[in-house]
Parts: sequence; C-alpha cells; structure tokens
Amino acid sequence: MQDPKSVRRVACIGTGVIGGGWAAHFLAQGYDVAAWDPGAGAEAALRTLVQRAWPALEELGLAEGASPDRLSFAPSLEAAVADVAFVQESGPERLDLKRRLLADLVAATSQDTVIGSSTSGYSMTEMASEAADGSRLVVGHPFNPPYLIPLVEVVGGERSAQWAVDWACDLYDVAGKSVIRMERELPGFIGNRLQDAIWREALHMVAEGEATVEQIDQAIVDGPGLRWALMGPCLTFHLAGGEGGMAHMLDHFGPSLKEPWTRLIAPELTKELRDEMVEGCEREAAGRSIADLVRERDRGLIAILKAIRESRKHA
Amino acid sequence: MQDPKSVRRVACIGTGVIGGGWAAHFLAQGYDVAAWDPGAGAEAALRTLVQRAWPALEELGLAEGASPDRLSFAPSLEAAVADVAFVQESGPERLDLKRRLLADLVAATSQDTVIGSSTSGYSMTEMASEAADGSRLVVGHPFNPPYLIPLVEVVGGERSAQWAVDWACDLYDVAGKSVIRMERELPGFIGNRLQDAIWREALHMVAEGEATVEQIDQAIVDGPGLRWALMGPCLTFHLAGGEGGMAHMLDHFGPSLKEPWTRLIAPELTKELRDEMVEGCEREAAGRSIADLVRERDRGLIAILKAIRESRKHA
Repeated sequence: MQDPKSVRRVACIGTGVIGGGWAAHFLAQGYDVAAWDPGAGAEAALRTLVQRAWPALEELGLAEGASPDRLSFAPSLEAAVADVAFVQESGPERLDLKRRLLADLVAATSQDTVIGSSTSGYSMTEMASEAADGSRLVVGHPFNPPYLIPLVEVVGGERSAQWAVDWACDLYDVAGKSVIRMERELPGFIGNRLQDAIWREALHMVAEGEATVEQIDQAIVDGPGLRWALMGPCLTFHLAGGEGGMAHMLDHFGPSLKEPWTRLIAPELTKELRDEMVEGCEREAAGRSIADLVRERDRGLIAILKAIRESRKHA
Repeated sequence: MQDPKSVRRVACIGTGVIGGGWAAHFLAQGYDVAAWDPGAGAEAALRTLVQRAWPALEELGLAEGASPDRLSFAPSLEAAVADVAFVQESGPERLDLKRRLLADLVAATSQDTVIGSSTSGYSMTEMASEAADGSRLVVGHPFNPPYLIPLVEVVGGERSAQWAVDWACDLYDVAGKSVIRMERELPGFIGNRLQDAIWREALHMVAEGEATVEQIDQAIVDGPGLRWALMGPCLTFHLAGGEGGMAHMLDHFGPSLKEPWTRLIAPELTKELRDEMVEGCEREAAGRSIADLVRERDRGLIAILKAIRESRKHA
C-alpha cells in the first residue's frame, strides 16, 4: 500500500453536505479531490459549497498548494476512484444504498485502496455484506461540518482488515483530523451516543413541558457547552473534585448518581468503574495538576468567550 | 424593595469554589461584596481565589469602579448580611446544613432581602422547610466557575413569592448573568439534567469497555462540544436538517430515535412534540435562515478554533 503520508489524491463519493464538506477539507489540506455524485446539479452544488467554505479554510490556514481548483468532478464513479489510494463514501443514509455503493466502490478500486464510510448509523459489518472484498472497508464517521469539526471516528467491521483500519487512521491523521480508533462496533459510535443522550433528555423535557427549546439551548450554550469546547465531561468533573480530582468527585458525589437528574439510569459505581475513571483522568491530565488544569480551562474559556463575543458582533 | 438596578452591595455566604467564584463575579461587576464562611482559613482562601481570578476578569472587562478591594470578610453571618438587598448562599451541599443556613439567613435579613441558593441538588421546597419566611428564598444555580460561565438557573419553591423570583432574575441579569427562569422545580434543573445524561452514558461506556475516558473527552471536545459553545443541541439539529430545518430533521431522522444510540429511551415523537421542537427552533432562529445560521456557526467555529489553538500555545 501507499504510505498515507505520500497520498496526494483522494476521491469523495456522494457530495451532499457531508461529502462536500469532506471535499472542502481535503482540498484545504492540499489534496487533489476527485468527486462524484449522481444527483442532478450535484457538481454545481459542490462547487458552491467549496467556494462558501473557502474563506473559513483560508482563515484557519491552508496547506501549501491547496486550491479549490484541484477539485475535479468525474463523469462516473469508476472515473472518480481510478488511481486513488483513498475513497471517502458519503452516500445517502439508507442501508440498501450503502451496501450497493460500497460494493461498487470495492469493485472499481484496486486491492490497495481503502474506503472510509461517513455513515452515522450503520455498522460496517452490516454495510459490507454485498462487497466482494470487505477487508478494505472501514467507517470514518465525521461531524458536520467536516472541514471545521476535527473529529473522525474510525472502526472496522467483521471483515475489515487491521491494516485497513490502521491505514485509514493514519491517512485521517495526516489529513489533519482528530482520530478516534474504536476497538469494536457500537451503535452511534462514541460522539453520537453522548450527543443522543443529551438530545433524548431534551426531547423528554420538551414533551413534558419541563423546559422550552430555547431554555435547553441557552442552558448548554451559556453553561456546560462552553466548557466542553475545551475539556470533555470527564476532565470537567476531574476539576469539579477540587484538589482530589475525579477520585474525590466520585467518592463524594457518587451518590448523586441515584438522583433522578435525567431519565437515564446510572450504572453501578463499582470499584472497577471508579478506578477506571480516576486513572483515565490521570492519564489525560498527563502530570498537569488540578491548578494547572484550572488555569488552562480559565484561559481557554476567556479566549472562547472573547471569540464568541467578537463573532456575534459581526452577525 | 430596592430596584435591582440600584443594588451596589451583595453578600456571599459560604466561600468555597462556588461561593468564592460568585464573590469574584460580583466584584468584577462593580459590587461591594460582604462575605462570610465559618471555615478555618476561609478568608485567606477567598482572597487568593479572587486574586487568581482577577486577571481573567480584567481581560473580559471590568465594570466601572470594580475592585477586589471592595471585598470585605465579615466576622459573622449577621454582619455580612446586614444592609444587603441580596444574598448568594453557597454553603455545603447537605440538606440539613442548607435548611439551617437558609433559616439563619432569613432571620438575619429584612423582609425585602432576597436570598439565592447555589444548590445543585435540592429544591427550594425541601430547603426552605426551617425558614420562618420562605417567600424570599429562591434557587440561583450557577455553573463553575461562576465568574466565567454565564448561566444561572432561577426557580422558586412552593413558598417562594413571585416577586422574589422576578427580583432575583432581574438582579442576576443586571449583574451580567445569563438567566433561565424555570416555571417549576425539576431535579437537576435544566443544565445539569442534560449534562448528567451525557455523564451517565459516558460512565456506562467506560463500565462496559466500549470507550475510554480519553476517547469520551476527545469525542466531545473535537466533536459536538465545539458546536455547543455556539449553538445548543436543538439549533444544531435545526441546521442538520438542511433547508428544511428541524421539521425535516424530525420527519426524516425521527426513526433513528428507535436506534440504541444511547441507553436513554427516547420519548414518543408525537405530532405535538414534533411541532413544539420545530416552533421552538423557529422562535430561536428569529427570522435567520438556515444559510444565515450556517454562516454564523461557521464564523463562530473558526473564532473558537483559533482561540483554543492560541490558548493551547500558551499552555
């Protein structure tokens, strides 16, 4: 296989909001992008999307030689994926269509080409069922818009080869994404599971008249959402424990898990779970004391608050 | 009662991380702050907290005349609350202590003084049980650190007077907080319920070996957390629906609520709930088109990404 670092050309198949966003991302990172989508007017819509995204990408910093001119729209799926080492598939989120599209992509590419699927809902084990060769198929699940939100969750299916999962992780990493490599298939992956827990609680609250849509959004944006742009929920609670960190937090506030603060029942806080949370936070802190982390958080929060204030002025 | 706009002096009772953070916030907003905490070394700890927070508060912009010198540490609870129109109570999170402290505060203040409690876990109906006069007691629940995170959730108990809830909302608003006025008591209020749903899902995932602490934090920070600093989960999904907004999102992706993407069971997506979500998003959008909102989101994301990058450089 080609060294992921030396890849200069990728294909984006399916060029709606997500696939088009991937194209914009790869272009900004200095790749040649061959795109294809069978929809009417797809090329024009894609070029508009890239054009609209470009000022943002310029502001964040383009790779050397990056240009929207390096986008080509191919006349067929086969033409788009000829000679590429990597394909990002972002077709419609329907299992039958995904199965067919991935099978076609496998058939049209060499045995060295890795294919990443943007699916948010299906496992690769389900989607790869019609492909002649499932070894090169992996999930590479982005968040919208893919050219601004760094996260991509990578996981293989039962037929995926380890080398293909490794290779996709390396390619995404080289291409400037924040990569999570999952060890097993899990509905909703990680980000969407966490997001969906909030979303479902929000829906329950609206359904029961406990909060309005506006209150829910305000609560997140002016509350925990500000912190989560900097530190995830675990490290946030590590800081909430004061000098004792996550250990203190769990040992003292663990009983609040019994409270009906959400409709989601909490797991049993076993010694194993407690220790794993504590050790995970220590690994993440990587030697930074609570005081260090508080300083970092506050510095980051000030920067974010100022940035948001500034960007709203221009709204 | 005093006009909330003319209040110049408030009391902060209990001066740990939360109470001290409130003191720093009120000082930065140009108030005189009278503090009291019975703990050993409390005054020194409070002054250190305010001193450490001050550079951040200066950077965000102080009110005219704001100074850490306007903090006084009183010799007793009674001395602290003499002549103040507003008291922020941030005592230990134990029901018996809260009951006693709030009863003492009611006894030590005039019938015009409003008392806001920082409690994150109790309802005012529970906490007010020992107070001679429950009408002036309300919950004013902040997020940590109160001097940087704008949100405060305000809700009364069964004995709280409407004027006191209104007055507290006005005072917090004048004092630069982002106020959510809740119409009824709800365990975890709004922000903590949403946060707790994520937290419990995270604990389940770690307990089952589905994700590590680091992966959970990375998924939020490099994924949805970035968006949530700008737009809450409802408006985020409004944008995910493309030009059709929340209506399209719910009509087309509603079935995914049946998927096991979290352990939290979704509510039935009735026509009423669907319409309420759609109308709530329209109210929030306030005439801004999806394209307007996408532009705002992207501009905000760029500003946040740059701010975080800059603040990490100094870490």
